[in-house]
Amino acid sequence: MRMNSLQFFESHYGQFLDELINFLSIPSISTDPDHAHDIQTAVAFIANKLSSIGIEHVKIFPTKRHPIVYGEHLKAGASQPTLLIYGHYDVQPDDPVELWDTPPFSPTVRDDMLFARGASDMKGQIYACVAAIESILQSDTLPVNIKFILEGEEEIGSPNLVDFLISHADLLKADCALNTDAGMLNKNIPAISYGLRGLAYFELRIFGPNRDLHSGSYGGIVHNPAQVLADLISKMHDAQGRVTLDGFYNDVLPLSSDEREKLARYGLSDAEYCADLGLPSLWGEKDFSPVERLGARPTLEINGLLSGFTGQGSKTIIPAHAMAKISTRLVPNQDPEKIYGMLVDFLKKNAPSTIRWELEQMSVGSPSLSDTNLPATRALMDAYKTVWGVEPALKREGGSVPVVADMQKHLGIDSVLTGFGLPDDRIHSPNEKLDLSTWRKGIQSLIHFFYNVKKD
Amino acid sequence: MRMNSLQFFESHYGQFLDELINFLSIPSISTDPDHAHDIQTAVAFIANKLSSIGIEHVKIFPTKRHPIVYGEHLKAGASQPTLLIYGHYDVQPDDPVELWDTPPFSPTVRDDMLFARGASDMKGQIYACVAAIESILQSDTLPVNIKFILEGEEEIGSPNLVDFLISHADLLKADCALNTDAGMLNKNIPAISYGLRGLAYFELRIFGPNRDLHSGSYGGIVHNPAQVLADLISKMHDAQGRVTLDGFYNDVLPLSSDEREKLARYGLSDAEYCADLGLPSLWGEKDFSPVERLGARPTLEINGLLSGFTGQGSKTIIPAHAMAKISTRLVPNQDPEKIYGMLVDFLKKNAPSTIRWELEQMSVGSPSLSDTNLPATRALMDAYKTVWGVEPALKREGGSVPVVADMQKHLGIDSVLTGFGLPDDRIHSPNEKLDLSTWRKGIQSLIHFFYNVKKD
Repeated sequence: MRMNSLQFFESHYGQFLDELINFLSIPSISTDPDHAHDIQTAVAFIANKLSSIGIEHVKIFPTKRHPIVYGEHLKAGASQPTLLIYGHYDVQPDDPVELWDTPPFSPTVRDDMLFARGASDMKGQIYACVAAIESILQSDTLPVNIKFILEGEEEIGSPNLVDFLISHADLLKADCALNTDAGMLNKNIPAISYGLRGLAYFELRIFGPNRDLHSGSYGGIVHNPAQVLADLISKMHDAQGRVTLDGFYNDVLPLSSDEREKLARYGLSDAEYCADLGLPSLWGEKDFSPVERLGARPTLEINGLLSGFTGQGSKTIIPAHAMAKISTRLVPNQDPEKIYGMLVDFLKKNAPSTIRWELEQMSVGSPSLSDTNLPATRALMDAYKTVWGVEPALKREGGSVPVVADMQKHLGIDSVLTGFGLPDDRIHSPNEKLDLSTWRKGIQSLIHFFYNVKKD
Repeated sequence: MRMNSLQFFESHYGQFLDELINFLSIPSISTDPDHAHDIQTAVAFIANKLSSIGIEHVKIFPTKRHPIVYGEHLKAGASQPTLLIYGHYDVQPDDPVELWDTPPFSPTVRDDMLFARGASDMKGQIYACVAAIESILQSDTLPVNIKFILEGEEEIGSPNLVDFLISHADLLKADCALNTDAGMLNKNIPAISYGLRGLAYFELRIFGPNRDLHSGSYGGIVHNPAQVLADLISKMHDAQGRVTLDGFYNDVLPLSSDEREKLARYGLSDAEYCADLGLPSLWGEKDFSPVERLGARPTLEINGLLSGFTGQGSKTIIPAHAMAKISTRLVPNQDPEKIYGMLVDFLKKNAPSTIRWELEQMSVGSPSLSDTNLPATRALMDAYKTVWGVEPALKREGGSVPVVADMQKHLGIDSVLTGFGLPDDRIHSPNEKLDLSTWRKGIQSLIHFFYNVKKD
């Protein structure tokens, strides 16, 4: 029966790809209010798709911002496990749009890769789940119970998801979650991510004079807000690349030597990273390897800077204000809610009295560690061995998937976090792509997984 | 006869104001190639106006970018002095345009103030000279010889002016220049500026990874270009507000105690500056007063910052690059050409090897000091005493008017630098304005000046 499902998928691959292309054509950018209508279009698309393949009780739950789509298929019976399949249908902004080789929302296949915003993060991953389940439902009965929860606010920090998890805990009751929002180690080695970094994102604004000033008429008596911002940002790291916020590392769970050894198996070399990124050399905390710094160490990043005149040519002003987008990636057991306080303390201590500052917390997400010995984890590892013929990697993820910690806390379930994105997929960047041969193997693996996870 | 000229001006004031409004309606922004046609319109407007009032040999000299307008009136004879009247018909950009109460190029009179980009800097000042000369020519003969030189590149650093001065030194031969590109001390005290700061303007670009990166996937191993830029900017000043470039202060001419005493007469208090600028406190070198810091001390300013994501909401990227507009204001005897080398040395010493940097020199201008005992200076001081009834201030200007040093060097003449702009005119900022009662008195003063400067 497993073979029938795999055959159904193979013979309908072109159709699944066409559907994914339609899904990717919808610019469901969650951060930009101008795209509110596109969000509605994406919601309708995925809800209709779930209904059409036999998912039951498909429902669109409005939130304060973007809706959550739910659906279920519970015909495997109470003796079989229930999997909660998580995904997000929203995507990152597409700017700088001029750097895309083909338009971000006109999906284009080149060299068996599909280029589009959201192709890898994560409409392609949602569609992998949908294709696997549709293939089984068209050729067999589904061996386990499933529930879908698809949100539209992941790229803006899921501000309404926790409330939904709490208020719909019964509806969402499950044994385990399947989350395909992570990625492969490389094209040949699939991975399951048991460790995730959390996130706390801020906007820092420095206000100087009540207007842009002529830098000749006022230069020398006014503390330049852009300079103040640079001073503050510069003080946020020490010369060794460590974050200087008081207490920032206090709650960081140290890596065991056993885990460091295991992580070392999967890391790229400095030279490999440098070649891919076009960098003369890497940077970061000296006492940790790249794979450790990415997965198990917290960081503070400047995501954006804006002040004064930024057009062509020269304009001799002292800007009235300056702004930075600043985010921290957090690791177990750091609490994202504490970071805001640390940053406020830092600013109180370091901001000069010549200016006024504001700090806005934009989004938070908790870091997490998952049990690597869940039945679902083992079922997926077996599926990967079958399809790829290699031992999958168990890894820590540098990115943030706060829903994993949120589901631990509010639904009491762990997640199997995986996915078919590759490190060079350029998620969040121009020319995001999905490797289609990997995607195909991913769908095959998921079909195996749903059969593997069935209890005898 | 002086009275006839003054009366002519009074009875034609409304007409001069209407003409100025037409001149200000032309968006002759020199830095923006999109406004090339507007530059041509402004050139035609002012050249036609000069011809129409009897200025002879009006000629438009093309340069590599924006033309120079010349005209002369030499009928006073060889026994009378020749004044070279300098002005610039180009204006600063109008951004951020949304902060203007009325559109920058739809000049609007409110409360006897004229709001428009260029109203104070310096189309209003050019028109003051034109109105004074027209008033005399319509009612008398011009007591002195004059030549006009009006350029269109002052706001982009006059890149083609020096070449023009050198190649047209004979045409421009004069005893002294009149330059109204400076301003009043305040509404009640006119001023002549004998000291000017120079300028050196740069764009610094930091290049990191070859694309914007997901800050989760790469945070901790990549040196963030925005952070590197902030580190570099922060190192450009020490904790005392002094610029740290090696040798930056070496050539600075110290202030004599006599000059410090004289400058102290005209300075605003810290509280007055703070009230006007909406600042909690001023900033700058501790050993110098505000008036000294503005007029006689060099500075380094950040004019703009841009990196990564700067829209609404959050985007979790490590930016591929970061950019700062950086300019220095220089005082006698600093050489702007040396500053580029100092900044390059600074970057070579301080920029980390994890990134690549580029420094582009955008424009330079020399600082200057002028003789305060010229016949033309005394003639203008007398005119001010007549019209305002007070002793005018002799001051140092914080801004840069490099043409003063350029004329010293290449034409061998000093400038009488003055003007009728006020400190709160918001030049280079939104809602630039011209105080019309001051402008009117300015034109009266210029009429007196042309009579005063005549040799017996």
